[in-house]
Amino acid sequence: MSLLSYFELAGTFFFAISGALAIKDKEHDWFGAGFTGFITAIGGGSLRDVLLGSYPLAWVSNVNLLYAILAGVAVSYFGWKWLIRFRRTLFLFDTLGLSLFTLLGTEKALSLGVQPEIAAIMGMFSAVMGGVIRDTLTNETPVLFRKEIYASACLLGAIVYLVLRELGLDRDLNLLLSVATIATTRILAVRYKLTLGGFS
Amino acid sequence: MSLLSYFELAGTFFFAISGALAIKDKEHDWFGAGFTGFITAIGGGSLRDVLLGSYPLAWVSNVNLLYAILAGVAVSYFGWKWLIRFRRTLFLFDTLGLSLFTLLGTEKALSLGVQPEIAAIMGMFSAVMGGVIRDTLTNETPVLFRKEIYASACLLGAIVYLVLRELGLDRDLNLLLSVATIATTRILAVRYKLTLGGFS
Amino acid sequence: MSLLSYFELAGTFFFAISGALAIKDKEHDWFGAGFTGFITAIGGGSLRDVLLGSYPLAWVSNVNLLYAILAGVAVSYFGWKWLIRFRRTLFLFDTLGLSLFTLLGTEKALSLGVQPEIAAIMGMFSAVMGGVIRDTLTNETPVLFRKEIYASACLLGAIVYLVLRELGLDRDLNLLLSVATIATTRILAVRYKLTLGGFS
Repeated sequence: MSLLSYFELAGTFFFAISGALAIKDKEHDWFGAGFTGFITAIGGGSLRDVLLGSYPLAWVSNVNLLYAILAGVAVSYFGWKWLIRFRRTLFLFDTLGLSLFTLLGTEKALSLGVQPEIAAIMGMFSAVMGGVIRDTLTNETPVLFRKEIYASACLLGAIVYLVLRELGLDRDLNLLLSVATIATTRILAVRYKLTLGGFS
Repeated sequence: MSLLSYFELAGTFFFAISGALAIKDKEHDWFGAGFTGFITAIGGGSLRDVLLGSYPLAWVSNVNLLYAILAGVAVSYFGWKWLIRFRRTLFLFDTLGLSLFTLLGTEKALSLGVQPEIAAIMGMFSAVMGGVIRDTLTNETPVLFRKEIYASACLLGAIVYLVLRELGLDRDLNLLLSVATIATTRILAVRYKLTLGGFS
Repeated sequence: MSLLSYFELAGTFFFAISGALAIKDKEHDWFGAGFTGFITAIGGGSLRDVLLGSYPLAWVSNVNLLYAILAGVAVSYFGWKWLIRFRRTLFLFDTLGLSLFTLLGTEKALSLGVQPEIAAIMGMFSAVMGGVIRDTLTNETPVLFRKEIYASACLLGAIVYLVLRELGLDRDLNLLLSVATIATTRILAVRYKLTLGGFS
């Protein structure tokens, strides 16, 4: 198994945790929480692959991803109180997952021969649309539509990657710099409550 | 036409009725009700086929399914008061449709060569995602996220089918037992207000 | 480039404007508005192509559509006050876009060999589902489910096109008449507050 496959498994695991933890109130049972974790983890990549017509979808052909999700949901269920205490650590893992998924998605789209502009959008979709679908299904307003820097950080990182790639930078170094761009932007934005300008 | 095709037509008809009946208040016109019935009836199977990359979708290649939906919507429109009186019968038909769609979806996914775990999820998706999409579009919280045993019954039935299939049970008998599992679980859960445990 | 391609670019541009303008309150930043414009512009056509299994999607293979969207969002951002004054003109453009997208979608579906009934639905989906997805993501009730004549006008126009086509009418004349049917129905419905009958 390649390093990228391990990243995918780990990202899926952490996304499932953050999805299941999004179910906070008493109205939901553990099945709903599991379903939510599942949608959060596979939604973005599935949407990307469906839009690109790239079959089979990762989780359909690789059942290990499903077990990573089940593990994430189980950890959320049994480790609830413990996880809440490590909220800051979780935020870091979520940010890392977001960064990795963006670059995985961008590279996958490029490998299928689409233009860089489209690949950047597909990278961002991979990272954020799982959460958007989750929030839509549970009638929350997706974070993407609030004034928090989130999807825009992913798009920025994908663009940085594509520009450095065009300039001929070594791939590993480029991945490192792009992931750092997303993570740093996101962390600084949350830390200092930075926002983009309003639209109206 | 095979027996399964008749089941599919009947299930589509009943799902269209339950979809159209979900439009209760005066804010909606008959076009919105028809659209809702349509989405409810084709949403789950379409999502399954899109996720599996199995083209053409059933309703795109078989226009009879569209007429089954139109018939269901017309019955809902003209038989409104009559249907309300038979709410208990409708619940039974809905439960039967749910059970049949789960097994149809599970078998279809298996026939496309996916792993049993994935086939079970695809079976559940076939049965419940039409209603989830309908509820999301009309800004309701999908029943799946409330504490009612619904999608979990479908998943249970799909797992029962896959286990019995692994054990070499005759297909017809297996389908009968699995459908009975889903229907019984759902009916008992509603009758005795059974719920799964809460998540937090 | 064919005339139809120009129509597609123009329709995409206007849909992006109407999508971005849907973001009215101060809660959103310009990234969210751009995302909304993007979803509005490409949602309907993407859904049609995914349901038909017709790859690559238009905006994935033609990056000019992305630039038409960016232009539309930029015009919305910088021309906000100016656009508000021309609300009536915008409504006309939106109606024209709706009409063109319906016929583009119907013809595309037909060209892929589906039955006329299905092609009519695909045409309507192309025109209205971008807005439906936008409204669902931002937690609005889609206009389609309110008592306004909107999607039904698109479906009517698609049916008119298909009937006239069956009768052997010249394609250009047919397109003109069908577009006029949709636009006239929509304009009269808004002008005279016409509605379809309620469902219950």
